[in-house]
Amino acid sequence: MALIVQKYGGSSVGNLDRIHHVAEKVIKAKNEGHNIVVVVSAMYGETDRLIQLANALTQHHDPRELDVLISSGEQVSMALLSMALNAKNCPARSFTGPQIGIFTDSIHTKARILDVKTDIIERELNQGRIVVVAGFQGVNDRGDITTLGRGGSDTTAVAIAAALKADECQIYTDVDGVYTTDPHLIPEARLIPQISFEEMLEMSSLGAKVLQMRSVELASKHSMPIRVLSTFSDGAGTLVTFEDKIMHKRLVSGIAFSREEAIISLSGIPRQIGIEGRILSKVNQANIEIDMIAQNATTEDKSDFTFTVHRREYPKAMKVIEELSTELGKINVKTNSKVAKLSLVGIGMRSHTGVATTMFRILGEQGINIQMITTSEIKISVVVDETHLEKGVRAVHQGFELDKPFQSSDRSFIE
Amino acid sequence: MALIVQKYGGSSVGNLDRIHHVAEKVIKAKNEGHNIVVVVSAMYGETDRLIQLANALTQHHDPRELDVLISSGEQVSMALLSMALNAKNCPARSFTGPQIGIFTDSIHTKARILDVKTDIIERELNQGRIVVVAGFQGVNDRGDITTLGRGGSDTTAVAIAAALKADECQIYTDVDGVYTTDPHLIPEARLIPQISFEEMLEMSSLGAKVLQMRSVELASKHSMPIRVLSTFSDGAGTLVTFEDKIMHKRLVSGIAFSREEAIISLSGIPRQIGIEGRILSKVNQANIEIDMIAQNATTEDKSDFTFTVHRREYPKAMKVIEELSTELGKINVKTNSKVAKLSLVGIGMRSHTGVATTMFRILGEQGINIQMITTSEIKISVVVDETHLEKGVRAVHQGFELDKPFQSSDRSFIE
Repeated sequence: MALIVQKYGGSSVGNLDRIHHVAEKVIKAKNEGHNIVVVVSAMYGETDRLIQLANALTQHHDPRELDVLISSGEQVSMALLSMALNAKNCPARSFTGPQIGIFTDSIHTKARILDVKTDIIERELNQGRIVVVAGFQGVNDRGDITTLGRGGSDTTAVAIAAALKADECQIYTDVDGVYTTDPHLIPEARLIPQISFEEMLEMSSLGAKVLQMRSVELASKHSMPIRVLSTFSDGAGTLVTFEDKIMHKRLVSGIAFSREEAIISLSGIPRQIGIEGRILSKVNQANIEIDMIAQNATTEDKSDFTFTVHRREYPKAMKVIEELSTELGKINVKTNSKVAKLSLVGIGMRSHTGVATTMFRILGEQGINIQMITTSEIKISVVVDETHLEKGVRAVHQGFELDKPFQSSDRSFIE
Repeated sequence: MALIVQKYGGSSVGNLDRIHHVAEKVIKAKNEGHNIVVVVSAMYGETDRLIQLANALTQHHDPRELDVLISSGEQVSMALLSMALNAKNCPARSFTGPQIGIFTDSIHTKARILDVKTDIIERELNQGRIVVVAGFQGVNDRGDITTLGRGGSDTTAVAIAAALKADECQIYTDVDGVYTTDPHLIPEARLIPQISFEEMLEMSSLGAKVLQMRSVELASKHSMPIRVLSTFSDGAGTLVTFEDKIMHKRLVSGIAFSREEAIISLSGIPRQIGIEGRILSKVNQANIEIDMIAQNATTEDKSDFTFTVHRREYPKAMKVIEELSTELGKINVKTNSKVAKLSLVGIGMRSHTGVATTMFRILGEQGINIQMITTSEIKISVVVDETHLEKGVRAVHQGFELDKPFQSSDRSFIE
């Protein structure tokens, strides 16, 4: 008998048929002898509907009141799921975030969870009930309703699982799990049965939008294994867990990528202490988010500085750079607004040199010009021309044999 | 400077334009120097939408979960109103029933308010804010969300006003106030500027559906004056208050009526102690609500017993009576399923005999046959053929001079 926290997203509870389907899945897990806590998002489209209502009402949203408004969405889905469970003779009770005691800070619309009370959940589980909890919402120390920002229900699920010391936190989505790369682009992509927290963080921050990043951080911090799996099909999904629990480690776990990038290269910048900070703070002041950064000291008194931004930020970024040019004197600006980022992620590369060399060789053989490189311990990212992205991902995926099947590493569902 | 609780119903906040309109009304009262607490219902149609969702999901509604579901409706309207107020530079905060501490019993979907906490409301008022509170909902001693049943927002408003010792509880609706009779039937009907709690109770229980009865009872118990007025037009409405505060008392305040009644007369019932109770309990067991009851002992050993039910209950009631006939032996049953009830209500008739006589005389002059009479201290009700209802109401309305204007009894808005 295990204690399992299951989280179902908005599309999983998107209509009444799906809510019945989720109820059946919950009952199946319960009948296998487990204690189940279910975290639900608002029905698909509901949060957007409420935000549109607020937008149509006024342009000046009081953030506290916006949280009151949008938190009503989960209240509807949790009540409906609980009613469906009860109707199927499976005793269940639903609770809002404030009712459970999911305490957050007071940053409305993107609050952070500070503490999760477990007494109500434990009381209900002890009575043999399913506990259904609203995701995405909590309460601050004034008793005000807060919300956690988009994807916050994942964070709710992990925080509850951690507080309860659950055996596993299962995140049900509309994908089967985490793939070696996007199967829409590369049909040979394989489901990854197990992946480390660190790799998952790099994968999600790089655009494999399966799990909210903050929930992976939280799971890692609390050593809470997360399983990503599909609401709509069977299968064990992907278990995100500790590195030392992973069998059959591979050098490279997956390839993440993102399109819609723009690259800006500044060269001939006078070498002054703090000059990079001055450049970045100008860009930040314009509310532009910077993704990759690379710097080279090219000569004694000059340096190069390259960074990438999302393509929609490119015109704004260029305006800032033009202002900087006049300030910094003669610098060369080279830009390309039609680039993409390709990233190799793998905990195995930490102890194996040569992964980068192999990657660059493979890209070179395809005639792909690399415009920028950044690396971390378990990731190598390159910027290439957008038209080269697909060819590059396919070649690297094949080159590192990611299309080969995993070997019997698909462990049992709950141990 | 007064403390005013204002309640706006579902049609008053039925769309975004109306929410802006309500915000303007609230701001106007605030600018007159008053402290304002606003109680809101769900947007018109929203509660029904949620109930339909539950019905489409399952026939087995868990009442606790139904309350979780439908209480989300007020959360939306209260947040939107508060956002509209803030956008107009009028600081406001919204709170759910559980947040405020509106404690109820645990009878889900028709809970009763047991206690109202005032600390949060007073804290916010002291900061100069408008406090917007969800009507219709509360919390039981387990921390579960409860709802008060249809029209429960009126009760919320009165309970909050009583707890705060407010100066007045204003119920904004889509009518101007309480009329001497239904103006749709009798265009000469006049707005009643002041009416006593007792009269209002008789008026609302008799079908003048302006205020929820329970809220009037509560207001009377806590000596809290209620003002009924229109969201959509200006005017002082009707003040429901203590008898001794009412100037220009009239013998008769108004005429209530209800159609869709059915009358069942039993005669020749053997006179036994408790026989009326036996008859009624049979009817009650069939879940039929009885409205009027009259009994006469016609002879030494026989009595007559007459009662009315809603017309839709008539076939069910007749089935019960048939069963009773075989039990009680030879009794005569006379029925009429097409009758209506006409009631004169007036605190003045308590000290003036002859009101009944005048009423019967007026009806007689119109050739209207009275099929049943019941009386209380401040009310006389008669059952007449449905086809005679309109003629009867018009004649009695005119006979008691209810179409004449009230004399300068329309007191100032807040004293």
